[in-house]
Amino acid sequence: MNRIITIGREFGSGGREIGKRLAEELGCAYYDKEIISAIADRSQLAEDYVNQIVENQIRTYYPITVASTLSAAPEDSVYSVNQSIFAAQAEIIEELAQKSDCVIVGRCADHILSAYHPLRVYVYANMEHKIARCRARNDSGKALSDKELEKRIRSIEKARAQYYRFYTGESHDDRMTYDLGINTSTITIPDAVAIIAALARAMK
Amino acid sequence: MNRIITIGREFGSGGREIGKRLAEELGCAYYDKEIISAIADRSQLAEDYVNQIVENQIRTYYPITVASTLSAAPEDSVYSVNQSIFAAQAEIIEELAQKSDCVIVGRCADHILSAYHPLRVYVYANMEHKIARCRARNDSGKALSDKELEKRIRSIEKARAQYYRFYTGESHDDRMTYDLGINTSTITIPDAVAIIAALARAMK
Repeated sequence: MNRIITIGREFGSGGREIGKRLAEELGCAYYDKEIISAIADRSQLAEDYVNQIVENQIRTYYPITVASTLSAAPEDSVYSVNQSIFAAQAEIIEELAQKSDCVIVGRCADHILSAYHPLRVYVYANMEHKIARCRARNDSGKALSDKELEKRIRSIEKARAQYYRFYTGESHDDRMTYDLGINTSTITIPDAVAIIAALARAMK
Repeated sequence: MNRIITIGREFGSGGREIGKRLAEELGCAYYDKEIISAIADRSQLAEDYVNQIVENQIRTYYPITVASTLSAAPEDSVYSVNQSIFAAQAEIIEELAQKSDCVIVGRCADHILSAYHPLRVYVYANMEHKIARCRARNDSGKALSDKELEKRIRSIEKARAQYYRFYTGESHDDRMTYDLGINTSTITIPDAVAIIAALARAMK
Protein backbone atom coordinates (compact mmCIF):
# COMPACT_ATOMS: atom_id res chain seq x y z
CA MET A 1 0.00 0.00 0.00
CA ASN A 2 1.24 3.50 -0.75
CA ARG A 3 2.35 5.80 1.99
CA ILE A 4 -0.25 8.54 2.32
CA ILE A 5 0.09 11.58 4.55
CA THR A 6 -2.89 13.86 5.03
CA ILE A 7 -2.49 17.31 6.51
CA GLY A 8 -5.32 19.21 8.15
CA ARG A 9 -4.44 22.71 9.27
CA GLU A 10 -5.58 25.94 10.78
CA PHE A 11 -5.43 28.89 8.42
CA GLY A 12 -2.08 30.65 8.79
CA SER A 13 -0.42 27.82 10.70
CA GLY A 14 1.94 26.80 7.88
CA GLY A 15 0.30 23.45 7.14
CA ARG A 16 0.49 23.97 3.40
CA GLU A 17 4.21 24.80 3.53
CA ILE A 18 4.82 21.75 5.72
CA GLY A 19 2.97 19.61 3.18
CA LYS A 20 5.05 20.87 0.26
CA ARG A 21 8.37 20.52 2.05
CA LEU A 22 7.41 17.10 3.32
CA ALA A 23 6.65 15.85 -0.17
CA GLU A 24 10.05 17.16 -1.30
CA GLU A 25 11.73 15.47 1.67
CA LEU A 26 10.03 12.15 0.98
CA GLY A 27 10.29 12.49 -2.80
CA CYS A 28 6.59 11.86 -3.26
CA ALA A 29 3.61 13.60 -4.87
CA TYR A 30 1.93 16.64 -3.36
CA TYR A 31 -1.72 17.43 -3.99
CA ASP A 32 -3.70 20.48 -3.25
CA LYS A 33 -4.99 22.86 -5.94
CA GLU A 34 -4.23 20.19 -8.54
CA ILE A 35 -7.16 18.24 -7.16
CA ILE A 36 -9.49 21.13 -7.82
CA SER A 37 -8.45 21.29 -11.47
CA ALA A 38 -9.01 17.58 -11.83
CA ILE A 39 -12.46 17.89 -10.28
CA ALA A 40 -13.26 20.76 -12.60
CA ASP A 41 -12.24 18.67 -15.61
CA ARG A 42 -14.33 15.78 -14.46
CA SER A 43 -17.43 17.65 -13.39
CA GLN A 44 -17.30 19.98 -16.40
CA LEU A 45 -18.01 22.95 -14.21
CA ALA A 46 -16.10 26.20 -14.30
CA GLU A 47 -12.93 25.94 -12.21
CA ASP A 48 -13.71 29.16 -10.37
CA TYR A 49 -17.02 27.81 -9.19
CA VAL A 50 -15.50 24.52 -8.12
CA ASN A 51 -12.73 26.41 -6.42
CA GLN A 52 -15.25 28.49 -4.54
CA ILE A 53 -16.92 25.37 -3.21
CA VAL A 54 -13.83 23.31 -2.53
CA GLU A 55 -12.24 26.24 -0.74
CA ASN A 56 -14.92 25.61 1.86
CA GLN A 57 -17.30 28.50 1.19
CA ILE A 58 -20.13 26.48 2.64
CA ARG A 59 -21.97 29.71 3.48
CA THR A 60 -22.69 30.15 -0.23
CA TYR A 61 -24.11 26.68 -0.68
CA TYR A 62 -27.75 27.58 -1.08
CA PRO A 63 -28.17 30.77 -3.09
CA ILE A 64 -31.17 30.35 -5.37
CA THR A 65 -29.66 32.68 -7.96
CA VAL A 66 -26.58 30.51 -8.43
CA ALA A 67 -28.74 27.42 -8.52
CA SER A 68 -30.87 28.83 -11.29
CA THR A 69 -27.80 29.88 -13.26
CA LEU A 70 -26.46 26.37 -13.17
CA SER A 71 -29.59 24.48 -13.88
CA ALA A 72 -33.33 24.67 -14.20
CA ALA A 73 -33.75 21.93 -11.61
CA PRO A 74 -35.53 22.42 -8.23
CA GLU A 75 -34.02 24.73 -5.66
CA ASP A 76 -32.00 21.98 -3.98
CA SER A 77 -29.85 21.75 -7.10
CA VAL A 78 -26.92 23.66 -5.59
CA TYR A 79 -26.94 21.11 -2.81
CA SER A 80 -26.85 18.36 -5.44
CA VAL A 81 -24.04 20.07 -7.32
CA ASN A 82 -22.02 20.30 -4.12
CA GLN A 83 -22.69 16.68 -3.33
CA SER A 84 -21.58 15.58 -6.77
CA ILE A 85 -18.45 17.74 -6.63
CA PHE A 86 -17.58 16.24 -3.26
CA ALA A 87 -18.18 12.76 -4.64
CA ALA A 88 -15.96 13.50 -7.65
CA GLN A 89 -13.31 14.93 -5.34
CA ALA A 90 -13.41 11.84 -3.12
CA GLU A 91 -13.06 9.63 -6.18
CA ILE A 92 -10.04 11.57 -7.44
CA ILE A 93 -8.39 11.59 -4.02
CA GLU A 94 -8.78 7.83 -3.85
CA GLU A 95 -7.29 7.42 -7.33
CA LEU A 96 -4.32 9.57 -6.33
CA ALA A 97 -3.79 7.51 -3.19
CA GLN A 98 -3.80 4.32 -5.24
CA LYS A 99 -1.37 5.78 -7.77
CA SER A 100 1.66 6.55 -5.56
CA ASP A 101 2.96 7.77 -2.22
CA CYS A 102 1.61 11.27 -1.63
CA VAL A 103 0.94 14.19 0.68
CA ILE A 104 -2.56 15.67 0.51
CA VAL A 105 -3.42 18.94 2.22
CA GLY A 106 -7.00 19.46 3.36
CA ARG A 107 -9.97 18.30 1.28
CA CYS A 108 -11.21 15.89 4.03
CA ALA A 109 -8.60 13.48 2.63
CA ASP A 110 -7.98 12.02 6.11
CA HIS A 111 -11.61 10.94 6.22
CA ILE A 112 -11.94 9.92 2.57
CA LEU A 113 -8.82 7.74 2.77
CA SER A 114 -9.44 6.18 6.17
CA ALA A 115 -9.33 2.67 4.65
CA TYR A 116 -5.77 3.42 3.48
CA HIS A 117 -4.62 4.21 7.02
CA PRO A 118 -2.90 7.47 6.14
CA LEU A 119 -0.62 9.24 8.58
CA ARG A 120 -2.98 12.04 9.64
CA VAL A 121 -1.29 15.25 10.71
CA TYR A 122 -2.98 18.35 12.09
CA VAL A 123 -1.06 21.64 12.09
CA TYR A 124 -2.17 24.47 14.33
CA ALA A 125 -0.87 27.61 16.02
CA ASN A 126 -1.98 30.36 18.34
CA MET A 127 -3.74 33.40 16.84
CA GLU A 128 -0.75 35.71 17.33
CA HIS A 129 1.43 33.37 15.28
CA LYS A 130 -1.20 32.96 12.56
CA ILE A 131 -1.69 36.71 12.23
CA ALA A 132 2.07 37.25 11.97
CA ARG A 133 2.37 34.52 9.35
CA CYS A 134 -0.53 35.88 7.28
CA ARG A 135 0.92 39.36 7.47
CA ALA A 136 4.35 38.21 6.37
CA ARG A 137 3.07 36.12 3.47
CA ASN A 138 0.13 37.97 2.07
CA ASP A 139 0.35 41.42 0.49
CA SER A 140 -3.36 42.04 0.86
CA GLY A 141 -3.13 41.23 4.57
CA LYS A 142 -0.59 43.97 5.13
CA ALA A 143 -3.22 46.70 4.89
CA LEU A 144 -5.41 45.04 7.55
CA SER A 145 -5.23 45.65 11.28
CA ASP A 146 -4.55 42.71 13.59
CA LYS A 147 -8.24 42.66 14.51
CA GLU A 148 -9.30 42.56 10.87
CA LEU A 149 -6.82 39.79 10.10
CA GLU A 150 -8.02 37.80 13.11
CA LYS A 151 -11.61 38.20 11.92
CA ARG A 152 -10.64 36.95 8.46
CA ILE A 153 -8.75 33.96 9.89
CA ARG A 154 -11.66 33.01 12.15
CA SER A 155 -14.10 33.32 9.27
CA ILE A 156 -12.03 31.03 7.02
CA GLU A 157 -11.57 28.52 9.84
CA LYS A 158 -15.27 28.52 10.62
CA ALA A 159 -16.09 27.78 6.99
CA ARG A 160 -13.51 24.96 6.90
CA ALA A 161 -14.90 23.47 10.08
CA GLN A 162 -18.44 23.56 8.66
CA TYR A 163 -17.26 21.99 5.43
CA TYR A 164 -15.49 19.15 7.23
CA ARG A 165 -18.44 18.51 9.51
CA PHE A 166 -20.88 18.65 6.61
CA TYR A 167 -19.11 15.90 4.69
CA THR A 168 -17.65 13.75 7.45
CA GLY A 169 -19.97 14.27 10.42
CA GLU A 170 -16.85 14.89 12.51
CA SER A 171 -15.02 17.87 13.88
CA HIS A 172 -11.83 18.52 11.88
CA ASP A 173 -9.89 19.62 14.92
CA ASP A 174 -10.98 16.72 17.16
CA ARG A 175 -7.67 15.11 18.12
CA MET A 176 -9.15 11.66 17.59
CA THR A 177 -9.31 12.43 13.86
CA TYR A 178 -5.51 12.77 13.63
CA ASP A 179 -2.39 10.87 14.66
CA LEU A 180 -0.04 13.76 15.20
CA GLY A 181 -0.81 17.34 16.21
CA ILE A 182 1.89 19.97 15.68
CA ASN A 183 1.82 23.46 17.16
CA THR A 184 3.80 25.72 14.85
CA SER A 185 3.75 28.55 17.38
CA THR A 186 6.61 26.67 19.01
CA ILE A 187 7.78 23.98 16.58
CA THR A 188 9.57 25.27 13.49
CA ILE A 189 8.50 24.17 10.04
CA PRO A 190 11.81 22.34 9.32
CA ASP A 191 11.50 20.48 12.64
CA ALA A 192 7.89 19.61 11.89
CA VAL A 193 8.83 18.27 8.46
CA ALA A 194 11.69 16.23 9.93
CA ILE A 195 9.53 14.47 12.52
CA ILE A 196 6.64 13.78 10.15
CA ALA A 197 9.10 12.36 7.61
CA ALA A 198 10.74 10.19 10.28
CA LEU A 199 7.36 8.92 11.39
CA ALA A 200 6.20 8.27 7.83
CA ARG A 201 9.35 6.25 7.12
CA ALA A 202 8.96 4.27 10.35
CA MET A 203 5.30 3.51 9.68
CA LYS A 204 5.72 2.18 6.18
CA MET B 1 18.87 26.41 30.06
CA ASN B 2 18.10 22.76 30.67
CA ARG B 3 16.05 20.75 28.24
CA ILE B 4 12.71 20.05 29.87
CA ILE B 5 10.04 17.80 28.40
CA THR B 6 6.62 17.70 30.01
CA ILE B 7 4.16 14.95 29.21
CA GLY B 8 0.44 15.27 29.72
CA ARG B 9 -1.56 12.15 28.96
CA GLU B 10 -4.89 10.43 28.92
CA PHE B 11 -5.16 7.53 31.33
CA GLY B 12 -4.21 4.31 29.56
CA SER B 13 -2.60 6.03 26.57
CA GLY B 14 0.98 5.02 27.46
CA GLY B 15 2.19 8.53 28.32
CA ARG B 16 4.02 7.32 31.38
CA GLU B 17 5.86 4.59 29.45
CA ILE B 18 6.77 7.12 26.75
CA GLY B 19 8.15 9.43 29.45
CA LYS B 20 10.33 6.72 30.98
CA ARG B 21 11.66 5.49 27.65
CA LEU B 22 12.28 9.04 26.48
CA ALA B 23 14.36 9.83 29.55
CA GLU B 24 16.41 6.68 28.89
CA GLU B 25 16.82 7.63 25.24
CA LEU B 26 17.96 11.17 26.12
CA GLY B 27 19.94 10.06 29.14
CA CYS B 28 18.20 12.53 31.40
CA ALA B 29 16.21 12.49 34.63
CA TYR B 30 12.66 11.22 34.85
CA TYR B 31 10.23 12.51 37.48
CA ASP B 32 6.89 11.25 38.48
CA LYS B 33 6.24 9.56 41.83
CA GLU B 34 9.60 10.84 43.02
CA ILE B 35 8.07 14.29 43.10
CA ILE B 36 5.37 13.12 45.45
CA SER B 37 7.91 11.75 47.91
CA ALA B 38 9.79 15.02 47.82
CA ILE B 39 6.59 16.94 48.48
CA ALA B 40 5.75 14.65 51.35
CA ASP B 41 9.17 15.24 52.89
CA ARG B 42 8.82 18.95 52.54
CA SER B 43 5.24 19.32 53.64
CA GLN B 44 5.64 16.81 56.47
CA LEU B 45 2.35 15.17 55.59
CA ALA B 46 1.85 11.44 55.23
CA GLU B 47 2.91 10.28 51.80
CA ASP B 48 -0.35 8.41 51.27
CA TYR B 49 -2.37 11.53 51.82
CA VAL B 50 -0.18 13.59 49.52
CA ASN B 51 -0.36 10.80 46.99
CA GLN B 52 -4.13 10.83 47.16
CA ILE B 53 -4.23 14.52 46.40
CA VAL B 54 -1.48 14.66 43.82
CA GLU B 55 -3.04 11.74 41.99
CA ASN B 56 -5.82 14.19 41.17
CA GLN B 57 -8.55 13.00 43.51
CA ILE B 58 -10.05 16.45 43.47
CA ARG B 59 -13.42 14.97 44.36
CA THR B 60 -12.13 14.34 47.87
CA TYR B 61 -10.97 17.89 48.40
CA TYR B 62 -13.58 19.04 50.87
CA PRO B 63 -14.53 16.25 53.28
CA ILE B 64 -15.01 17.81 56.70
CA THR B 65 -13.91 14.62 58.43
CA VAL B 66 -10.53 14.63 56.76
CA ALA B 67 -10.19 18.33 57.45
CA SER B 68 -10.84 17.87 61.11
CA THR B 69 -8.39 14.98 61.29
CA LEU B 70 -5.67 17.16 59.84
CA SER B 71 -6.28 20.29 61.77
CA ALA B 72 -8.63 22.12 64.08
CA ALA B 73 -8.81 25.05 61.69
CA PRO B 74 -12.02 26.20 59.92
CA GLU B 75 -13.61 24.00 57.32
CA ASP B 76 -11.63 25.46 54.43
CA SER B 77 -8.48 23.92 55.85
CA VAL B 78 -8.43 21.02 53.38
CA TYR B 79 -8.51 23.61 50.65
CA SER B 80 -5.54 25.34 52.27
CA VAL B 81 -3.65 22.07 52.64
CA ASN B 82 -4.22 21.35 48.96
CA GLN B 83 -3.05 24.80 48.01
CA SER B 84 0.12 24.47 50.06
CA ILE B 85 0.83 21.01 48.66
CA PHE B 86 0.41 22.36 45.15
CA ALA B 87 2.70 25.29 45.97
CA ALA B 88 5.32 22.91 47.39
CA GLN B 89 4.98 20.69 44.33
CA ALA B 90 5.43 23.67 42.00
CA GLU B 91 8.52 24.74 43.92
CA ILE B 92 10.04 21.26 43.71
CA ILE B 93 9.25 20.93 40.00
CA GLU B 94 10.99 24.24 39.38
CA GLU B 95 14.03 23.13 41.38
CA LEU B 96 14.20 19.90 39.37
CA ALA B 97 13.98 21.85 36.11
CA GLN B 98 16.85 24.08 37.21
CA LYS B 99 18.95 21.08 38.27
CA SER B 100 19.26 19.16 34.98
CA ASP B 101 17.61 18.06 31.74
CA CYS B 102 14.50 16.07 32.62
CA VAL B 103 11.21 14.49 31.61
CA ILE B 104 8.26 15.22 33.90
CA VAL B 105 4.98 13.35 33.53
CA GLY B 106 1.79 15.11 34.62
CA ARG B 107 1.66 17.33 37.71
CA CYS B 108 0.76 20.46 35.68
CA ALA B 109 4.50 20.73 34.97
CA ASP B 110 3.83 22.21 31.52
CA HIS B 111 2.06 25.13 33.17
CA ILE B 112 4.38 25.46 36.17
CA LEU B 113 7.45 25.53 33.95
CA SER B 114 6.11 27.76 31.19
CA ALA B 115 8.93 30.28 31.74
CA TYR B 116 11.42 27.48 30.94
CA HIS B 117 9.80 26.84 27.54
CA PRO B 118 9.56 23.08 27.94
CA LEU B 119 8.71 20.83 25.03
CA ARG B 120 5.11 20.07 25.94
CA VAL B 121 3.81 16.72 24.72
CA TYR B 122 0.27 15.38 25.06
CA VAL B 123 -0.32 11.66 24.64
CA TYR B 124 -3.82 10.38 23.90
CA ALA B 125 -5.63 7.42 22.40
CA ASN B 126 -9.11 6.24 21.58
CA MET B 127 -11.12 4.48 24.28
CA GLU B 128 -10.77 1.03 22.72
CA HIS B 129 -6.98 1.34 22.82
CA LYS B 130 -6.96 2.63 26.39
CA ILE B 131 -9.18 -0.19 27.60
CA ALA B 132 -6.95 -2.78 25.90
CA ARG B 133 -3.83 -1.22 27.40
CA CYS B 134 -5.31 -1.08 30.91
CA ARG B 135 -6.44 -4.68 30.59
CA ALA B 136 -3.02 -5.85 29.47
CA ARG B 137 -1.10 -3.98 32.17
CA ASN B 138 -3.28 -4.08 35.24
CA ASP B 139 -4.20 -7.29 37.05
CA SER B 140 -7.11 -5.66 38.83
CA GLY B 141 -8.49 -4.46 35.51
CA LYS B 142 -8.70 -7.99 34.18
CA ALA B 143 -11.76 -8.79 36.26
CA LEU B 144 -13.66 -5.77 34.94
CA SER B 145 -15.90 -5.66 31.89
CA ASP B 146 -15.07 -3.22 29.09
CA LYS B 147 -17.89 -0.97 30.30
CA GLU B 148 -16.54 -0.98 33.85
CA LEU B 149 -13.02 -0.24 32.66
CA GLU B 150 -14.28 2.59 30.47
CA LYS B 151 -16.15 4.03 33.44
CA ARG B 152 -12.99 3.88 35.55
CA ILE B 153 -10.89 5.52 32.83
CA ARG B 154 -13.43 8.32 32.34
CA SER B 155 -13.60 8.90 36.06
CA ILE B 156 -9.80 9.20 36.40
CA GLU B 157 -9.62 11.49 33.38
CA LYS B 158 -12.39 13.69 34.72
CA ALA B 159 -10.54 14.08 38.01
CA ARG B 160 -7.31 14.91 36.20
CA ALA B 161 -9.06 17.48 34.04
CA GLN B 162 -10.60 19.10 37.12
CA TYR B 163 -7.23 19.12 38.88
CA TYR B 164 -5.51 20.78 35.92
CA ARG B 165 -8.25 23.36 35.51
CA PHE B 166 -8.32 24.06 39.23
CA TYR B 167 -4.65 24.95 39.37
CA THR B 168 -4.01 26.39 35.93
CA GLY B 169 -7.36 27.81 34.80
CA GLU B 170 -6.84 25.96 31.51
CA SER B 171 -8.06 22.77 29.94
CA HIS B 172 -5.32 20.11 30.03
CA ASP B 173 -6.35 18.72 26.66
CA ASP B 174 -6.63 22.08 24.87
CA ARG B 175 -4.15 21.74 22.02
CA MET B 176 -2.87 25.26 22.62
CA THR B 177 -1.41 24.03 25.91
CA TYR B 178 0.94 21.61 24.13
CA ASP B 179 3.43 21.61 21.26
CA LEU B 180 3.02 18.05 20.08
CA GLY B 181 0.01 15.74 20.33
CA ILE B 182 0.55 12.03 19.79
CA ASN B 183 -2.24 9.52 19.25
CA THR B 184 -0.99 6.16 20.51
CA SER B 185 -3.96 4.34 18.97
CA THR B 186 -1.97 4.58 15.74
CA ILE B 187 1.58 5.66 16.62
CA THR B 188 3.65 3.05 18.44
CA ILE B 189 5.45 3.92 21.66
CA PRO B 190 8.95 3.43 20.15
CA ASP B 191 8.00 5.72 17.24
CA ALA B 192 6.58 8.30 19.64
CA VAL B 193 9.78 8.23 21.72
CA ALA B 194 11.93 8.58 18.59
CA ILE B 195 10.15 11.68 17.30
CA ILE B 196 9.98 13.41 20.68
CA ALA B 197 13.69 12.73 21.20
CA ALA B 198 14.51 14.08 17.72
CA LEU B 199 12.46 17.18 18.39
CA ALA B 200 13.99 17.71 21.82
CA ARG B 201 17.48 17.45 20.33
CA ALA B 202 16.62 19.88 17.53
CA MET B 203 15.07 22.40 19.90
CA LYS B 204 17.98 22.63 22.31
